[in-house]
Amino acid sequence: MASLPKEQWAQVVEKTGGPVVYKKIPVPKPGPDEVLVNIKYSGVCHTDLHAMQGDWPLATKLPLVGGHEGAGVVVARGELVDDVEIGDHAGVKWLNGSCLHCDFCMQSDEPLCPKPLLSGYTVDGTFQEYCIAKAAHIARIPKNLPLDAIAPVLCAGITVYKGLKESGAKPGQWVAIVGAGGGLGSLAQQYAKAMGIRIIAIDTGDDKKEMCLNSLGAEHFIDFATSKNVVKDVQAATPDGLGPHAVILVAVNEKPFQQAAEYVRPRGTVICIGLPAGAYLRAPVFESVIKMISIKGSYVGNRKDSAEAIDFFARGLIKAPFKVVGLSELGMVYDKMHKGQIAGRYVLDTTK
Amino acid sequence: MASLPKEQWAQVVEKTGGPVVYKKIPVPKPGPDEVLVNIKYSGVCHTDLHAMQGDWPLATKLPLVGGHEGAGVVVARGELVDDVEIGDHAGVKWLNGSCLHCDFCMQSDEPLCPKPLLSGYTVDGTFQEYCIAKAAHIARIPKNLPLDAIAPVLCAGITVYKGLKESGAKPGQWVAIVGAGGGLGSLAQQYAKAMGIRIIAIDTGDDKKEMCLNSLGAEHFIDFATSKNVVKDVQAATPDGLGPHAVILVAVNEKPFQQAAEYVRPRGTVICIGLPAGAYLRAPVFESVIKMISIKGSYVGNRKDSAEAIDFFARGLIKAPFKVVGLSELGMVYDKMHKGQIAGRYVLDTTK
Amino acid sequence: MASLPKEQWAQVVEKTGGPVVYKKIPVPKPGPDEVLVNIKYSGVCHTDLHAMQGDWPLATKLPLVGGHEGAGVVVARGELVDDVEIGDHAGVKWLNGSCLHCDFCMQSDEPLCPKPLLSGYTVDGTFQEYCIAKAAHIARIPKNLPLDAIAPVLCAGITVYKGLKESGAKPGQWVAIVGAGGGLGSLAQQYAKAMGIRIIAIDTGDDKKEMCLNSLGAEHFIDFATSKNVVKDVQAATPDGLGPHAVILVAVNEKPFQQAAEYVRPRGTVICIGLPAGAYLRAPVFESVIKMISIKGSYVGNRKDSAEAIDFFARGLIKAPFKVVGLSELGMVYDKMHKGQIAGRYVLDTTK
Amino acid sequence: MASLPKEQWAQVVEKTGGPVVYKKIPVPKPGPDEVLVNIKYSGVCHTDLHAMQGDWPLATKLPLVGGHEGAGVVVARGELVDDVEIGDHAGVKWLNGSCLHCDFCMQSDEPLCPKPLLSGYTVDGTFQEYCIAKAAHIARIPKNLPLDAIAPVLCAGITVYKGLKESGAKPGQWVAIVGAGGGLGSLAQQYAKAMGIRIIAIDTGDDKKEMCLNSLGAEHFIDFATSKNVVKDVQAATPDGLGPHAVILVAVNEKPFQQAAEYVRPRGTVICIGLPAGAYLRAPVFESVIKMISIKGSYVGNRKDSAEAIDFFARGLIKAPFKVVGLSELGMVYDKMHKGQIAGRYVLDTTK
Repeated sequence: MASLPKEQWAQVVEKTGGPVVYKKIPVPKPGPDEVLVNIKYSGVCHTDLHAMQGDWPLATKLPLVGGHEGAGVVVARGELVDDVEIGDHAGVKWLNGSCLHCDFCMQSDEPLCPKPLLSGYTVDGTFQEYCIAKAAHIARIPKNLPLDAIAPVLCAGITVYKGLKESGAKPGQWVAIVGAGGGLGSLAQQYAKAMGIRIIAIDTGDDKKEMCLNSLGAEHFIDFATSKNVVKDVQAATPDGLGPHAVILVAVNEKPFQQAAEYVRPRGTVICIGLPAGAYLRAPVFESVIKMISIKGSYVGNRKDSAEAIDFFARGLIKAPFKVVGLSELGMVYDKMHKGQIAGRYVLDTTK
Repeated sequence: MASLPKEQWAQVVEKTGGPVVYKKIPVPKPGPDEVLVNIKYSGVCHTDLHAMQGDWPLATKLPLVGGHEGAGVVVARGELVDDVEIGDHAGVKWLNGSCLHCDFCMQSDEPLCPKPLLSGYTVDGTFQEYCIAKAAHIARIPKNLPLDAIAPVLCAGITVYKGLKESGAKPGQWVAIVGAGGGLGSLAQQYAKAMGIRIIAIDTGDDKKEMCLNSLGAEHFIDFATSKNVVKDVQAATPDGLGPHAVILVAVNEKPFQQAAEYVRPRGTVICIGLPAGAYLRAPVFESVIKMISIKGSYVGNRKDSAEAIDFFARGLIKAPFKVVGLSELGMVYDKMHKGQIAGRYVLDTTK
Repeated sequence: MASLPKEQWAQVVEKTGGPVVYKKIPVPKPGPDEVLVNIKYSGVCHTDLHAMQGDWPLATKLPLVGGHEGAGVVVARGELVDDVEIGDHAGVKWLNGSCLHCDFCMQSDEPLCPKPLLSGYTVDGTFQEYCIAKAAHIARIPKNLPLDAIAPVLCAGITVYKGLKESGAKPGQWVAIVGAGGGLGSLAQQYAKAMGIRIIAIDTGDDKKEMCLNSLGAEHFIDFATSKNVVKDVQAATPDGLGPHAVILVAVNEKPFQQAAEYVRPRGTVICIGLPAGAYLRAPVFESVIKMISIKGSYVGNRKDSAEAIDFFARGLIKAPFKVVGLSELGMVYDKMHKGQIAGRYVLDTTK
Repeated sequence: MASLPKEQWAQVVEKTGGPVVYKKIPVPKPGPDEVLVNIKYSGVCHTDLHAMQGDWPLATKLPLVGGHEGAGVVVARGELVDDVEIGDHAGVKWLNGSCLHCDFCMQSDEPLCPKPLLSGYTVDGTFQEYCIAKAAHIARIPKNLPLDAIAPVLCAGITVYKGLKESGAKPGQWVAIVGAGGGLGSLAQQYAKAMGIRIIAIDTGDDKKEMCLNSLGAEHFIDFATSKNVVKDVQAATPDGLGPHAVILVAVNEKPFQQAAEYVRPRGTVICIGLPAGAYLRAPVFESVIKMISIKGSYVGNRKDSAEAIDFFARGLIKAPFKVVGLSELGMVYDKMHKGQIAGRYVLDTTK
């Protein structure tokens, strides 16, 4: 640890609302059950913008270093840490740490821990060169994997993989993915395909249609903007006309959340992942009972989900398009994001 | 079959809207895979009133003999029926028959069969002395059980038992039952107790409180009319304050359907059984995702659920209060039902 | 039905021990819940030879028409059959029929029905031009599929697919397939791959190694004859060295049944499908408890498993090599089978 | 921590083979993630005797303080421990600690952790006044519960409860418990009853028969010594004659492990808990496949199982007979145990 610098570059939110300030701050020291990760690359997620803007009911720490999709190298570890070596590659995720002994942690539902440490929200995150994380919670990254490409998998990839697992869809069954052409949707399709699940992509536009059908594994594409009857079209896409076994909602507006219950197959499951602001699930009681459908929320993956999602990536089954810019350019990325000008994921190089 | 009468008494709906006409009609003959059951007793359910009144989108057969909680004795059987003996006791349920080979029937989800035969709705039901049912679908009733007392179990009992199974609640876990003091709720509590599940009863009034806590197995009673904060009170009733693992909604108004998602435990399941007219499930997307809750419709039980529900009754673990009147008095029962004057279940004696 | 012939060619076992006699016998008539299938092609399975030879404790009917992998066209149906059309393509499987209302049938475990009708064993099978089957039990075959190629899927394919489902192996997890290079093993590998499951093939010989690794989807091949330590080699084939999540035993000798428990991963499942004569499962209690492993028997698939297995085939994901000869040549096939000279599946053309 | 003594009384195994030496040793200090528990009472288990005698392949630490059923009061905690208060009541179990981040710990299978700390085996256990345990692993004991009575629940109770959960037996289904009249068997019956599961007790002798049927909840008792056909008698005890849905093997000899597969219901599960020295599971492949049975090892419970098992005890549903003697008398207890003279559990009072 002698060779670690005392100071590092970081992007700091000094007051709610921003902006981010690119400045030097001290390099933190890991506690007994923590590691220090030299972040090489960090993805930028909408959540980071929300955190800076204070959009959500829960207050962030201040000053705050945002970021929760960081990939790097372990450079120090606490005295209790015996299964992570200096030099190991590691990912720092949204769930920076959890208590590991509450009712939820005991049942592998760490994301439901009532005392979570959230990277870039309640603890400093990955928009800095050196980031602390609980050793038990870091993602283990094989050394042969590119650290820039894996960054977006650490949040978006894990989250959609978790949603697919929660849906209960089995190999050979059908899943409809709503918002299929977006960042989460593109990943969801690739994971579904790798899991042997058949895909109905729902989104709009010919570019997205072509991408879903030719590159991402979908067998059908329903354009919600031009379809005269989305419900009928989705059901007709399944060979027996009964609709998909599951629906994955990664869309960011409310309507699809209320439509999915209509076209999902009897006994099917609607999984909500996307978080449109102020949106409500809504489904008629009568039809929901008669069809015995389930509507289910799916949050981020637990540690095991994370390891599995990374493994699919490691096997070359998942590609997430991304663009690398320097950490110093985060303000520009937020600007574009705010204006809705981003397609694909921005990944920050912490050395620039 | 030589000794069977040619004619029988029945209550017949001759036109939608009613009334029921008590008259003689021919005794039907079972097809190759059917049995003829001499109904001794039949429960009267709200659904029967809805059927007569034409309240639901799906039209009934006409003229119609209603009823779907019939208990009696097998008096004839078709040529393919080899596992039901003349003289066996049998129950005729809402699901009079199903195809047994569609995608749902193949997976033990007969209630989701797209071509169901529904007793007292699409085929003649149990408000007659002799009723036809598919042999594969009748409930097998041990001969030592009273046929009047078991009648209400054949619909209400099976339905709540199914809901409890679908909830995934395990022995030692907590379930909140909303509408606990009503007919379905009373049965749900007894089944939950027999399954080792702990109960929070939600309803209103001191009579119901006393019944739930002293007779039906509840450990807590929340009076929704006097509680200042139902959500907090329900959660506080569980030792760790995190709320019940499951909620069973047998209420007939909409509000509880929207409140349950708030107090159910993270990872918990809200089961909808009751069918308030025109009601909607509604839950905030954000909280549902973060808490990873499930909202699930549960319809009537399949054949296995039915056998199990009857078995709990046979062991003396379930009591359903009922009052016997003659089949000829069905009109009076409907009158009271229409006026909301019924507590407990009316059971018709077909010999009167 | 007027145009059906009165007589047909069949291969008949007239006494236990055989031989099969190629002769004309009457065309049977379907009962009310049955169909008559004009068998076009029928696979030949070892079980058929065992049936002729009377190798098993349960006696066959006599005289007997063997065969239980028949694919053909529905030419007649009983009065109760309303969801199969004349002209539909159908498969006749080992489970020709079951009661559909016992405790097992009610739970989708038709293969466990205590009163099964077994094709080519307790009822006449598919080594004839016209075969009876219970309508609820025939496999529905899309008309675009070749009837010769699908025949072996109807028994071998469904059985290994069922075993994979029972194993609980998930997409991304590892399964070891013992006897990977044989008929069942080849199919098992293709199904596993289609389900997103990773494969360790266990068998012997360079031909099988090359086939498993290059054509069937295995990532590792362990040659049990040349490996110095099968247990260690199998475990080492998984990235963390803990062994595969499941083992599928389709071998026909006893040793692998006792070795699998040693290399399966803690919490893993060993699935027995193959039926080596007189063999025993055997595992040390201490290690089995400490590792919490499961050893589980898997019999033939139920109707839903069958439909799914056929669907994978229909999508072009499963290839089973086969050789077509005339029905009249069954004796020759049995001869070769008896001498162990068969590689791949023989399929009989009933018109020759 | 100032008030803690420097020395304490303990029973120490100084060399493999014993004996235990009652002597003063230093009071240990908890590490950052550990607590120090002032053990008030500790149960004595056969495993403790095995550890002293060096009966098992894995070597113990030396010198060794045995014991793994300790109940007491938390008197000190490490700096990372924030959810256990000084004064809390806690149980120290067989699994003193685990890594919490391996593949098994991540999936709530801490007992399968490849780097476990085992109380009274690889780390010092509960036969001393002050014992160290990982904070995340201690059992939380409500303060109103008697610490002597709960001690045996901490190992035996949790283990049988876990086995019942693993069996998959549902409320209303049947379980056969082999060795029902012993310590584990008595607890297993009480847990099964509390879970709504019906019981067939298998053991021998009129005293055990009377205890099982009249006090512990069994509905049937099969005396394996006097039964002419245990398999038939067990099957006949279930109403449909098909046998119990699950079998719990807590016996300590081999024969029942090989017999259970014969009488368990098709699709049923045989759970092995007991560890007869050198015993083997053994089951015929043919019948196991045809009946689709599972044979499954079940080790100790995880942390959640432990909390649940304690909760059933806290509700008054579980009674384990025990006899209290002083810690100084452990040698005498081992003597009796060695001679097979113990009925019920001995619990040591560490103050004597």
